[in-house]
Amino acid sequence: MSLIEDLQWRYATKKMSGRAVDQEKVDQIVEAARLAPTSSGLHPFKIIEISNPELKKKIQPIAFNQSQIVDSSHLLVFAAYDEYTKERVDAPFKQQEIERGLPAGFADDYKNGLFAKLQTQSKDQHFEHAARQAYIGFGLAIAAAAELKVDATPMEGFINQQLDELLGLEKLGLRSVTILALGYRDEENDWLLNLKKVRIQKEDFVINYN
Amino acid sequence: MSLIEDLQWRYATKKMSGRAVDQEKVDQIVEAARLAPTSSGLHPFKIIEISNPELKKKIQPIAFNQSQIVDSSHLLVFAAYDEYTKERVDAPFKQQEIERGLPAGFADDYKNGLFAKLQTQSKDQHFEHAARQAYIGFGLAIAAAAELKVDATPMEGFINQQLDELLGLEKLGLRSVTILALGYRDEENDWLLNLKKVRIQKEDFVINYN
Repeated sequence: MSLIEDLQWRYATKKMSGRAVDQEKVDQIVEAARLAPTSSGLHPFKIIEISNPELKKKIQPIAFNQSQIVDSSHLLVFAAYDEYTKERVDAPFKQQEIERGLPAGFADDYKNGLFAKLQTQSKDQHFEHAARQAYIGFGLAIAAAAELKVDATPMEGFINQQLDELLGLEKLGLRSVTILALGYRDEENDWLLNLKKVRIQKEDFVINYN
Repeated sequence: MSLIEDLQWRYATKKMSGRAVDQEKVDQIVEAARLAPTSSGLHPFKIIEISNPELKKKIQPIAFNQSQIVDSSHLLVFAAYDEYTKERVDAPFKQQEIERGLPAGFADDYKNGLFAKLQTQSKDQHFEHAARQAYIGFGLAIAAAAELKVDATPMEGFINQQLDELLGLEKLGLRSVTILALGYRDEENDWLLNLKKVRIQKEDFVINYN
């Protein structure tokens, strides 16, 4: 099964070579995240795609000086909605109406119930829910990179608020959640490359009710 | 690119046929989630795999009577750690020591720093962080199912606390976060099957800093 092989091939690259990833491949990795299923189809996250070297240099100290920030080809910053506004809940249903040729207001009952429930929740609860959806896209982007034999390092180690400020995310109603650094491994200098992949044992991972 | 094609093929199946999915395929879908990269390698989630019809019947009312709960072949309940205890932080590093043949305490500085940071956080913060990691595995399981042409419905619509009680998750230190129902589409009776897949437009999804 090719996904399993791809996931066994990949690893969290610690030292990248600086070699550029073709834009076409970056586009496919982003496309996998765009195709992610999300709760009620809200798709409450965006990707900030960064290849600009000066900007990456500014991000590096925010990310505890990790070398992949500058040695990567592209950084994909996954950023989630800071809250679910009425406009943000309406938009995907409106889009469905148009693209599927459905009658106006076809899902109003569902949508209004959803929005009423969201209004009982705090902004932080909205963000946490949105962030989880972003992680579905994050997982799919990781799988896509592996299929394309592009190295990808998932990175949570950065100061979110400082990155939000640098990228001007607040005024877009977004908050950063995680980064995927894309590039190519530096085979001679990556200490992790030849270490065995370690994962939780299957018997510790799965509980069966069959 | 086969992942993109797989993701275009899949959809959140609304009506399943009851046909069983081979255990070998279920195992591969679970394996994709097991191979998920997670923050500091903590892998803070498990899968509860359920094919028992009586148990699925008990879950259905907890999940707003959605038909996929009983018409699916297997339910994969993704459940995250309710907190990061010292034991849970120690275990993956111990496993790395053993499997990689590294000196005892090779990562003590990193691990102790991580645990000190976690101790400044609440149990709810631990759980939210763990839940996000579960969603990486969730994304990979969705991709694996699509590659195997197994239908899969991501389901957040259930009462978490009631499911936790039914499955006895609290005493395992786990809390449910999401369900993936696996099975096969009922082609004649699924209203969603022939509707166009709708996703956020690329220009609304990606912000470029190139």
